[in-house]
Amino acid sequence: MNIQQKIQALREAMTEKQLDAYIVPSTDPHQGEYIHEYWQARQWLTGFTGSAGTLVVTRFFAGVWTDSRYFLQAEEELKGTGVELVRLVIPHTPEFVDWLLKNLPKGSLVGVDSQVVSASLFSLLRTSFESADIRLTGELDLVGEIWANRPSLPLNPVFELDVAFSGKTRSEKMEEIRLVMKQKGIDFHLISSLDDVAWTLNLRGNDIPFNPLFISYLLIGLEESFLFIHQAKISEEICQKLSSEGIFLSLYEEINKLLPAIISGKNVMLHSSKSSYYLSELVKKHALLIDEPALPVLMKAIKNPVEQAHLRKAMEKDGVALLRFFRWLEKEVPTGRLTEYGCGEKIRTFRSETDGYMGESFAPIVGYAGHGAIVHYSADENTSSILKPEGILLIDSGGQYLDGTTDITRTITLGNPTEQQKKHFSLVLKGHIRVASAVFSYGTKGYHLDSLARLDLWKNQLNYGHGTGHGVGFFLNVHEGPQGISPNPAINQVFEPGMVTSNEPGIYIENQYGIRIENLVLSRELPDRGTGRYLEFETLSLFPIDLELVDKDLMDQSEMDWLNRYHAEVFRRLSPHLEAEEKEWLKNKTRVL
Amino acid sequence: MNIQQKIQALREAMTEKQLDAYIVPSTDPHQGEYIHEYWQARQWLTGFTGSAGTLVVTRFFAGVWTDSRYFLQAEEELKGTGVELVRLVIPHTPEFVDWLLKNLPKGSLVGVDSQVVSASLFSLLRTSFESADIRLTGELDLVGEIWANRPSLPLNPVFELDVAFSGKTRSEKMEEIRLVMKQKGIDFHLISSLDDVAWTLNLRGNDIPFNPLFISYLLIGLEESFLFIHQAKISEEICQKLSSEGIFLSLYEEINKLLPAIISGKNVMLHSSKSSYYLSELVKKHALLIDEPALPVLMKAIKNPVEQAHLRKAMEKDGVALLRFFRWLEKEVPTGRLTEYGCGEKIRTFRSETDGYMGESFAPIVGYAGHGAIVHYSADENTSSILKPEGILLIDSGGQYLDGTTDITRTITLGNPTEQQKKHFSLVLKGHIRVASAVFSYGTKGYHLDSLARLDLWKNQLNYGHGTGHGVGFFLNVHEGPQGISPNPAINQVFEPGMVTSNEPGIYIENQYGIRIENLVLSRELPDRGTGRYLEFETLSLFPIDLELVDKDLMDQSEMDWLNRYHAEVFRRLSPHLEAEEKEWLKNKTRVL
Repeated sequence: MNIQQKIQALREAMTEKQLDAYIVPSTDPHQGEYIHEYWQARQWLTGFTGSAGTLVVTRFFAGVWTDSRYFLQAEEELKGTGVELVRLVIPHTPEFVDWLLKNLPKGSLVGVDSQVVSASLFSLLRTSFESADIRLTGELDLVGEIWANRPSLPLNPVFELDVAFSGKTRSEKMEEIRLVMKQKGIDFHLISSLDDVAWTLNLRGNDIPFNPLFISYLLIGLEESFLFIHQAKISEEICQKLSSEGIFLSLYEEINKLLPAIISGKNVMLHSSKSSYYLSELVKKHALLIDEPALPVLMKAIKNPVEQAHLRKAMEKDGVALLRFFRWLEKEVPTGRLTEYGCGEKIRTFRSETDGYMGESFAPIVGYAGHGAIVHYSADENTSSILKPEGILLIDSGGQYLDGTTDITRTITLGNPTEQQKKHFSLVLKGHIRVASAVFSYGTKGYHLDSLARLDLWKNQLNYGHGTGHGVGFFLNVHEGPQGISPNPAINQVFEPGMVTSNEPGIYIENQYGIRIENLVLSRELPDRGTGRYLEFETLSLFPIDLELVDKDLMDQSEMDWLNRYHAEVFRRLSPHLEAEEKEWLKNKTRVL
Repeated sequence: MNIQQKIQALREAMTEKQLDAYIVPSTDPHQGEYIHEYWQARQWLTGFTGSAGTLVVTRFFAGVWTDSRYFLQAEEELKGTGVELVRLVIPHTPEFVDWLLKNLPKGSLVGVDSQVVSASLFSLLRTSFESADIRLTGELDLVGEIWANRPSLPLNPVFELDVAFSGKTRSEKMEEIRLVMKQKGIDFHLISSLDDVAWTLNLRGNDIPFNPLFISYLLIGLEESFLFIHQAKISEEICQKLSSEGIFLSLYEEINKLLPAIISGKNVMLHSSKSSYYLSELVKKHALLIDEPALPVLMKAIKNPVEQAHLRKAMEKDGVALLRFFRWLEKEVPTGRLTEYGCGEKIRTFRSETDGYMGESFAPIVGYAGHGAIVHYSADENTSSILKPEGILLIDSGGQYLDGTTDITRTITLGNPTEQQKKHFSLVLKGHIRVASAVFSYGTKGYHLDSLARLDLWKNQLNYGHGTGHGVGFFLNVHEGPQGISPNPAINQVFEPGMVTSNEPGIYIENQYGIRIENLVLSRELPDRGTGRYLEFETLSLFPIDLELVDKDLMDQSEMDWLNRYHAEVFRRLSPHLEAEEKEWLKNKTRVL
């Protein structure tokens, strides 16, 4: 079937069910960042492959709402399909709702698949539609009905993450969670978010790109717990272990049948923005629903001392792999054959030669010259630029290791940097350093610290359009909550000792270059002086910052001190793992300025 | 009647109405910061004179909930009255609600006077009580029934603020408001907040301490408007003028009778947190209520060019008065007779000799040594400290002038400052300068800038417990919204060009001293460079910062440059108004460091 035929088939199914509009969101029952192709219904229907976008189909209209990252790509991919691109004014907002309100007559019936739409989005739709006398039904998976050759759900095996890495046994984590459940009067805690399940159980999987997760639900009771998962994914050994700890396996597809019997009449906690509407309704029907963020969200954000120690090791390994890549790059650029795409491939190769490497933590962003100014640029094998011995190259990449997740951005000059490039780089670096060296009172949140990274750019009437930092998981998702550094007051989480957050200010000059300097930082508490609790950041990532781009005249002495101290630490930590020639290279790159 | 008798009388009235509890808030129908004694029912009943506090009386209990500013004062004032002091854990929160929920049996009936309680607090009470099966009635003013010799409402005359000061005629302001009303589909806009009424009408009064306001309501219609006010307050001349502009006078007390007829069936906008529950219900009964902040709130926060020009003049006058005071203080301290209270009196005297002076903008805070560490310290005539030629003196004061409202804090040493005092002063000054010299992108809010003032204190594990700044009115309230500089994300107002905000970081060392440096700053837009909109602050207040307390070693060059530039400006602007000796004095105080 081509796109027109698929949309036509959907319209026929809609007519049969008397639907006036059908909404296909880009989410799955677990509401994660990446979703398995089994649930990529919007992509299958429209051919648009961007990660974010909502399809709305009515009798006479079909359109995808997506954000500016994907305007160009969506335009090309949707060309000739009859599916229109609708440009979101504000990213990640349900602007399609207003369109429906304006375009549907009173009494219309709108459908959406309750298995994939989040409970919170469904509530918002219902409230919005009610006022306009439009009805909403969640009972129909129309795409499933017409989707021939739909991919199957994955059966990849699940594996244990040894307590030597996690630092806390499964039982200890379950006890912690149960303690809070008892305090809150909760009988059962239903967790749909895959990283929270993986963290709680000290298990990992391979079902989702870049994230070491496995498709499942976890229902934690005060005595017994239930892991809903496809049997084939769990070995006999793990199954035995889990059951000896009171965690019993049930079939993933049968959660709808088993859940009611288990939770009937109990207090059940789940988070409506991380749960499908379907499951949320099922719980509401049989139990008292308490709508709060899953308890592992905050627990897993606070890395324990064992995780912290591993992370420091992972950063050394990651730094060495990056060093090998950048040395190789310096030799390759003059050949005139190295492309952005080739860089991404080679970074992966060097990382993969590292002990404990488990994969990339996201698709690398390798942006040369003007491409660097496209914040979510993804180099295509066939069309990516060839690197020349001039201009600016931005590389944002990361690895998954058994001992942690990395995410690091370096921006380098390939030759003859201009004064403006050096100025912009130095302004970004000043912001990076002001965050890295900040001390702040306990209670401080990301929206209090974000401006520290922008202050010097602002002074020059410059800014960047993204947040300054996101939380990072431990051999889990590279984008993890609940904390972050952003102007957005909705990210309302106090920094706790042990949290790992990225520090990544930047600047983007359209069609010229992009500059971003990103390290991961660990928040840790300062010794008490009797004046309240204070925290600071320890920079975890280890790789030189390009000195060729630093304009010393723009830097304060304290900033130069920070840079020289950081480079001394990079050399001290990486050099024991290096060959003599590599050590020389690093010595020069970390020289005192 | 003594306090016990008053509470007893209230309990008898409660019994008669079958009330189990009665709530007496510290608010009036206009929900302002200061209230006329006619509405100071809580103070009359309990003897507690603090500005914030809620009284709750049940059959067996009477208690006042207040915040830490007033713990000592309330303890003393309530001693032996039978009224308990209940210490608020979090200031300005209705913690008494939880107490009532815990202590009242199901089916209880609670009363509050709907004429003084805000509509938003009443809603909160109702929602909280509903879940516990407690009923709430707002129909009873029990205190009014038992209050013998209750003060009368004031009859002070209202006067015009010439357009030469306001910069915009009443008609222009009304037109602006009506334009927005039309866009929003509003027929009538009911304004209870006295400063919004005064700003809109270019009128001022003398009914409220420190705020040049007059008690009234304003109902703005698309054609005709109504000012509800006591007739005696308005001269024939003003009355004529108003009516020629379509603004008609009605009796303040008769708003309940007239309002229904005027608004019946219309769309009426009012703000539930600035309106009494009584008026809000009256509107709901007869019209469609639209609950949004009053339109003048944002309009009056953005000072027009005429107001800005006047403000700069007012700052010069205020600086000269302060200079005369501080010179006098230097001569008086050695006599050993000058008290904190005496300083406050003398500041007022010097300001009152100034052209266009209309009164103090708040009660001055004069805190010597340990008293300076009490953030809301108020020196008592009989018990205030005598100043000695040593230690730290903090003075926070302000004036009301026809050409603007001032608010300035200076902290000086009276002799032999310690290294720690100089260090703390310099850290506060660094924060003050970082705010004063900030450039920021349009869209920035107070909670993004607040940390700039704290960064250097935080580095030394120090902090202060108040916000960094508040909006300031133009010959209006010294505390004005909607913008501010505070960690609190509820102050969610973007800085607009023309806003006036205080910049007042501090540090408070218990029993030793308090340091605060406060200037008012005007936000203004930078010339466009094609990279978006950016704003900066112009410091308005003009008075030297005590150089004896600056530790140069702790200051960056750019900070010293700011200080020297500021002092040059202070000298340039104040010196033309000074006698030769005063000029000499200022020359020394503003010397280049």
